[in-house]
Amino acid sequence: MLEKFDLSKTITDAEYKKSEKKLKARLGELQRKAWDLKIPVILVFEGWHISGMAEDINRFILSLDPRGYSFHAMMTRPCYEELLKPFIVRFWSRIPVRGKIAIFDRSWYSRAVIECLEKESLESHEEEMGKRLEEINCFERQLGDDGYLIMKFFLHISEKKHKERFDNFKKDNIPLIFDDYEKESGKDLDFILNYKDYLPFVEKLLEKTDMPYAPWTIVEANDRNFATLKIMMAVIHAIETSIENTTRTPAEQTLKYLNMEALGVPQLNNSTLENVDLSKKMNANEYKESKKLYQQKLSALQYELFKKKRPLVIVFEGWDAAGKGGGIYRLVENLNPRLYRVVPVSSPNDIEKAHHYLWRFCEAIPKAGHITIFDRSWYGRVLVERVEGLCSEEEWKRAYREINEFEEFLTQAGVIILKFWLQIDKDTQLNRFNSRLFDPEKKWKITAEDWRNRSRWEDYKIAVEEMLQKTSTTNARWIVVESNDKRYSRIKVLKTTTEVIENRLKK
Amino acid sequence: MLEKFDLSKTITDAEYKKSEKKLKARLGELQRKAWDLKIPVILVFEGWHISGMAEDINRFILSLDPRGYSFHAMMTRPCYEELLKPFIVRFWSRIPVRGKIAIFDRSWYSRAVIECLEKESLESHEEEMGKRLEEINCFERQLGDDGYLIMKFFLHISEKKHKERFDNFKKDNIPLIFDDYEKESGKDLDFILNYKDYLPFVEKLLEKTDMPYAPWTIVEANDRNFATLKIMMAVIHAIETSIENTTRTPAEQTLKYLNMEALGVPQLNNSTLENVDLSKKMNANEYKESKKLYQQKLSALQYELFKKKRPLVIVFEGWDAAGKGGGIYRLVENLNPRLYRVVPVSSPNDIEKAHHYLWRFCEAIPKAGHITIFDRSWYGRVLVERVEGLCSEEEWKRAYREINEFEEFLTQAGVIILKFWLQIDKDTQLNRFNSRLFDPEKKWKITAEDWRNRSRWEDYKIAVEEMLQKTSTTNARWIVVESNDKRYSRIKVLKTTTEVIENRLKK
Repeated sequence: MLEKFDLSKTITDAEYKKSEKKLKARLGELQRKAWDLKIPVILVFEGWHISGMAEDINRFILSLDPRGYSFHAMMTRPCYEELLKPFIVRFWSRIPVRGKIAIFDRSWYSRAVIECLEKESLESHEEEMGKRLEEINCFERQLGDDGYLIMKFFLHISEKKHKERFDNFKKDNIPLIFDDYEKESGKDLDFILNYKDYLPFVEKLLEKTDMPYAPWTIVEANDRNFATLKIMMAVIHAIETSIENTTRTPAEQTLKYLNMEALGVPQLNNSTLENVDLSKKMNANEYKESKKLYQQKLSALQYELFKKKRPLVIVFEGWDAAGKGGGIYRLVENLNPRLYRVVPVSSPNDIEKAHHYLWRFCEAIPKAGHITIFDRSWYGRVLVERVEGLCSEEEWKRAYREINEFEEFLTQAGVIILKFWLQIDKDTQLNRFNSRLFDPEKKWKITAEDWRNRSRWEDYKIAVEEMLQKTSTTNARWIVVESNDKRYSRIKVLKTTTEVIENRLKK
Repeated sequence: MLEKFDLSKTITDAEYKKSEKKLKARLGELQRKAWDLKIPVILVFEGWHISGMAEDINRFILSLDPRGYSFHAMMTRPCYEELLKPFIVRFWSRIPVRGKIAIFDRSWYSRAVIECLEKESLESHEEEMGKRLEEINCFERQLGDDGYLIMKFFLHISEKKHKERFDNFKKDNIPLIFDDYEKESGKDLDFILNYKDYLPFVEKLLEKTDMPYAPWTIVEANDRNFATLKIMMAVIHAIETSIENTTRTPAEQTLKYLNMEALGVPQLNNSTLENVDLSKKMNANEYKESKKLYQQKLSALQYELFKKKRPLVIVFEGWDAAGKGGGIYRLVENLNPRLYRVVPVSSPNDIEKAHHYLWRFCEAIPKAGHITIFDRSWYGRVLVERVEGLCSEEEWKRAYREINEFEEFLTQAGVIILKFWLQIDKDTQLNRFNSRLFDPEKKWKITAEDWRNRSRWEDYKIAVEEMLQKTSTTNARWIVVESNDKRYSRIKVLKTTTEVIENRLKK
């Protein structure tokens, strides 16, 4: 969930000051309304250690009426009495009274992580951690069902920033959350500071606890101003929505997105796709050699998969004319047709429409030892179906989690999943459309639908970004393939595929 | 979930015939309506092996239009091709088209159980089974979210009936669901036939998968007629409700309970409480000796609990004047007040009301090694709050699961939970009320509220039965205490308490 966030954007101090003033006024107003309506609010702050959380929280709470919130600092070790109580009961007793806001600076999440890790090694505690998270999900669901508004923020910074800040912390001798724990247990918890080691652990935790009743908001926190504004806006939007849900019938509700223009604050849309380097190229010679090399490797690997009974799913998504077909062609060029199958996915037929949207893909999920390549896939739910209004907003919003769960169960059953997003820019698409149009052999490839989709490029872009962010999971990451250059694109697909298979077969 | 069902009631063939005719007509009508409204229905049948399922299903499907349903016999071993596919995908491909009914004679549940058990021993596969159930819950939730109506029936028979039928099966040489598996794996699966061993396993499975979007209906299946009628009525009620949800706005919905009188069929309310033998008595001598014995034991056990850091929760619920106070008094008479605490629970104050209903009990959950005795408890949610309309129907219906989850997390944290229901009959209550009324020393104990509650005895009875059925879980069973005789009641409480503690401390 973390890797597809762009951490590069910044907000100047002048911009920040201007926006902050407006947002503070709005927040104060909403706080009073929530109080009148007796809506209890729980705000959880978690993030990388040294992500600058304290500062952000402080800037945030300054905008609130202190009579209306309680602040819970959970960074320190629980006291002796607390440790004698069952885990979740310690937090139950801290929930806010209806109408008030409870702010948790670190929470049950940090406590669960540290208490699990304190005892044993990271790996051996997967099961205990699983139980804790189940407990936490249950706790949050019960509160959600009872009308509590729960928002969870994860303050995300880059590895570079992490190192920088940590060096500063050490210099200034500022205590860290787990210093306390280390002293007690004598156990070294430094790996929490090891960004690369800790990342998959954090991602799994976020994936397993991102629930409709208590969603995570990932906050790009390299830049303080950006982070604080994002938090304020998210809280404003959530309380506004909650007030709407409380005071209006479903039919009367109109609020969908926070109107940032009306608030006069800057857009906070970061973009991974904009940072993709589409100038990447490969010359014909290197292409020829690499193609030969990786196709041979892949040909050998398909039999390895068969022998080890591991099924492989490869998903191709991307802009029209991004080169999905060509990429798939090079992928299967040297494979044994008895072991692979390419499944082109277009709009569902009547029978397919009369089932759950995942149903039609189940037949094509490969048997043990086999390969299925999907040319477009179940991601249509959050792309074309979302953009064209073919399903309701509720349905596509729910689909991120449904798809993650679906892929997780496949992974648990031994399926290796690869997902490619083929990225091109708008000009490249136009050139390819035109060349298709004037090439009698390719003319069939281009239809009115392609032009219509192209006209909605910006809407699709939003949908693609959100898809990449929300469905790039630890077991099934999205691989963005720079595809302006077809040779580069095809080799990246081939190379990545062989590497991932080799990697997974080792485990 | 199973032990609190009364399996003794029967329906005569004449009664059955009469009711069946009416229910068949109604079912056919509803099937056509569901088809028009495109509501997909999934009916899952599971139960004890040899519970007579096939016969019940057959009697049930005869009432349906065969064009409108598909039948899936899942009792046999999956074929080779199926086994090569990920577990849940095999069932995804069998979901019905919108508007049709899919009937599963055995299902993903039996398959999960047998495939897990086939490999290893019962104990070592708890983790694998846990994963399967998570997968199943997810599958059912995704379908539920998409508008699928899912009903799951568990055909429950008594141990005696189980033995009888099994003997008949062997005589007639009828193949059993796992014969097929045994042949393949060479593994002995006979323990499935061992009622006592298999019971806790089955109960856990039912508890973990009883979800609002896919609830279990326990069918008392000792009597064929009773079982079939209960299944038919449950399906009728569920489809009616689903049609209401589809065609009416929430405000327009009126249907709450199936009007069985209007259908002209017999009531199918079984009752555990009616089968409780309230004539149980104890003479004064035995009482005196037993009290001394168990109080001494308990006194020693409290220190054992303390040494082993195990917290103990004892919940007392029961009719007014059933003897809760007296029972608690004898329980704590010889205990060390530093280690125990009695918490009387009455109606919540303003601050308590402004929190989730479980909040106020959290403070009183004992620390490691301590004891808390609740004189009334969180069960008020499904008793007084339900009967007096102090919470909404949705809230108390949700509470069974919430309470089970709450108690499960306590158990996981090492808490031992004991729950006593003190059962008396109406006459005994009246006598005790009267004696309180005319005894100047006890007069304070009786208030107008007691008389008001008494006047709603029948409503409370329904609530109590449902509470016992739905919250008597493997880790926290309800113990019904026959309390017409105070001496018998007090000793049973003392004795059970010592036994359960001894038992749990061994583990």
